[in-house]
Amino acid sequence: MKNNLQYFALLFKKKIMLNFEFKNPTKIHFGKGLIAKIADEIPADAKVMMLYGGGSIKTNGIYEQVKAALKNFEVIEFGGIPANPEYDVLIKALNIIKSEKINYLLAVGGGSVIDGTKFLSSAALYNGENPWDILQKGIRTEVGMPFGVVLTLPATGSEMNSGAVISRAENKQKLGMGGPGLFPQFSILDPQVVASIPPRQIANGIVDAYTHVLEQYMTYPIGALLQDRISESIMQTLMEIAPSIMKNPAEYDTACEFMWSCTMALNGLIQKGVPTDWTVHAIGHELTVLYGIDHARTLAIIAPSHYRYNFESKKEKLAQYAERVWKINEGTTEEKAYAAINKMEAFFHSLGMETKLSKYSENYRDAAPFIFKTFTERGMTGIGEHKNISPDDVVKIVEMSY
Amino acid sequence: MKNNLQYFALLFKKKIMLNFEFKNPTKIHFGKGLIAKIADEIPADAKVMMLYGGGSIKTNGIYEQVKAALKNFEVIEFGGIPANPEYDVLIKALNIIKSEKINYLLAVGGGSVIDGTKFLSSAALYNGENPWDILQKGIRTEVGMPFGVVLTLPATGSEMNSGAVISRAENKQKLGMGGPGLFPQFSILDPQVVASIPPRQIANGIVDAYTHVLEQYMTYPIGALLQDRISESIMQTLMEIAPSIMKNPAEYDTACEFMWSCTMALNGLIQKGVPTDWTVHAIGHELTVLYGIDHARTLAIIAPSHYRYNFESKKEKLAQYAERVWKINEGTTEEKAYAAINKMEAFFHSLGMETKLSKYSENYRDAAPFIFKTFTERGMTGIGEHKNISPDDVVKIVEMSY
Repeated sequence: MKNNLQYFALLFKKKIMLNFEFKNPTKIHFGKGLIAKIADEIPADAKVMMLYGGGSIKTNGIYEQVKAALKNFEVIEFGGIPANPEYDVLIKALNIIKSEKINYLLAVGGGSVIDGTKFLSSAALYNGENPWDILQKGIRTEVGMPFGVVLTLPATGSEMNSGAVISRAENKQKLGMGGPGLFPQFSILDPQVVASIPPRQIANGIVDAYTHVLEQYMTYPIGALLQDRISESIMQTLMEIAPSIMKNPAEYDTACEFMWSCTMALNGLIQKGVPTDWTVHAIGHELTVLYGIDHARTLAIIAPSHYRYNFESKKEKLAQYAERVWKINEGTTEEKAYAAINKMEAFFHSLGMETKLSKYSENYRDAAPFIFKTFTERGMTGIGEHKNISPDDVVKIVEMSY
Repeated sequence: MKNNLQYFALLFKKKIMLNFEFKNPTKIHFGKGLIAKIADEIPADAKVMMLYGGGSIKTNGIYEQVKAALKNFEVIEFGGIPANPEYDVLIKALNIIKSEKINYLLAVGGGSVIDGTKFLSSAALYNGENPWDILQKGIRTEVGMPFGVVLTLPATGSEMNSGAVISRAENKQKLGMGGPGLFPQFSILDPQVVASIPPRQIANGIVDAYTHVLEQYMTYPIGALLQDRISESIMQTLMEIAPSIMKNPAEYDTACEFMWSCTMALNGLIQKGVPTDWTVHAIGHELTVLYGIDHARTLAIIAPSHYRYNFESKKEKLAQYAERVWKINEGTTEEKAYAAINKMEAFFHSLGMETKLSKYSENYRDAAPFIFKTFTERGMTGIGEHKNISPDDVVKIVEMSY
């Protein structure tokens, strides 16, 4: 432990990039009219399960395009995967995969459908008795059933990474999973799909991707100059396109920027060689479990309070963010850092997103005790880049967000 | 043809990101003390050819580290691959690969050794009669013999891309090749190797990587906001670390920035969805053929003249580069654009690099006629992002570089 602390102290002082491993084998097809590419990417003899969500793909033309591309394959459909993909629903799909000897999965949807498909990719080849263990015990997926993606909702970045988050209402749990076996083999990113996304979901996508960048970037300074600048680039791009994509999601050129920025925000690149935080997500997930608040909105609620509460350890990076992203060049480090948090919060408001929990639920005071109980029951002692944000700290952050 | 022109005209007017395909499966191990990872990455039953250059790896400790990592493998060494990897030398290696039934290649070196290894990866599995055809006829390599890399010289980005450039002194030719089969399976990037690189090579690395970014970025504006910003991020990082890495290449934290920036400059990411130019490389290669000038130095000679000669079609992007990278905010578009070219040239000079051909050879006047002859013999009609830079234009660019 002492050696670890000395190592971290040295890193902090010298700002030395951390060792890292990076491999992202997902093939991206990005652009107009590429859904037909599915047919070239799926092996000819595959027996395919096509997974989707609530059926919006049946009203925006995507369903027909996918079906046309799959016309020479044996396909079983599985629709109805809900937002925050529910374990019990996925188990139904898993049973069909096994009984029908499915050997290829195709996710047609946003983060929830893709994450659900990743769980199925893992569970289909899992030898243990209870697939819930993959989540509960944090079993890493080295090899999964191959799958591809047709992205319909830019936000989570799941289309080009190997992580997933699965919910189980029965247990009030929302847990992560991952491993190198869970990269999509291919993902089709056609920005034309953005045209039919409602403004609420567009706002969610912007804030989700933006907060993904923040969680990887807003730590103590590590001196990873390029990773910092790429993170700032993604945030600047999201901010630049936000007003026009909110107003007119059918504008193709803006939809391109939106879609690619969301993918780049969480495809592994900007987290390499740097410490990462993920406190906002850890707390936010519990707000979704408790209140059913949209994932992105939970991030908008927690992020400002988190940065204010942990101001001392993050103020240098907050000031850099202020200067480079918000062009705030006047004032002390502290003044710039505070101003940046305020600007960030105002940006979330500009997307029509409330940042206080009391705006979402009358029972907002349940949040802190629930999260404290959940975290302590799980044996969580500290989160954040220093692993020093305790359940008591989390209570204070949540209360600041009321 | 007319349809193509209309399409390009539309793209130009509307600034719409181009469709793209992106897949980069190379696994990167980045950081201190990772050379031993080779043993985990190469299949246990592999018969390995270890390729290297002039022998600098035997004086800086890298050779011993690689040999130690390979101690349980059957290994044949092939040293002496020269800068601008020479076809005739590589053919000797190819004969050994075939006679010894080598099935895995390991490049230990910089861009020349890696590019040479890529040629061998392709040629070893090539069924045609003459391996020169791979270069001469531009045969794309779909599947190559698997290979890994231990990078000793950050510059070309070859450690994380699927392209190579091979020279043949006999024919006075320097030709490119590529294909999805030519991504390294893994690359070890240990920034400690930078400590023993002479300043001349460090300067070459900086300018090579910087010009790679310029060639992908400095076109007409396409409106790929994120790609532009990431390109600017790489250039800013290289400029920021240049003075200290030139002074002290043993500074590990700076070496990290240098090494990762060089890789990111040409791993495919920033070229996706945008037009790219590559005129500077096309002309520069011929200066290396004719005079043996270091590759990076040929780029420093040609880039300023190219941007001045093709000023009208590039001035908007040059002005953006001026504002964002050089913080030049005063003046008209034209004034900012010109100032940026001057700043760029001064940056090359600050690295001890001459930017006029007459500083490298007394026979500098041979260049324009030689390149004109070469390009016209190859049937080249136009290069650059508009494919409209004719051999006559090239003559003028070269003459401006005297």
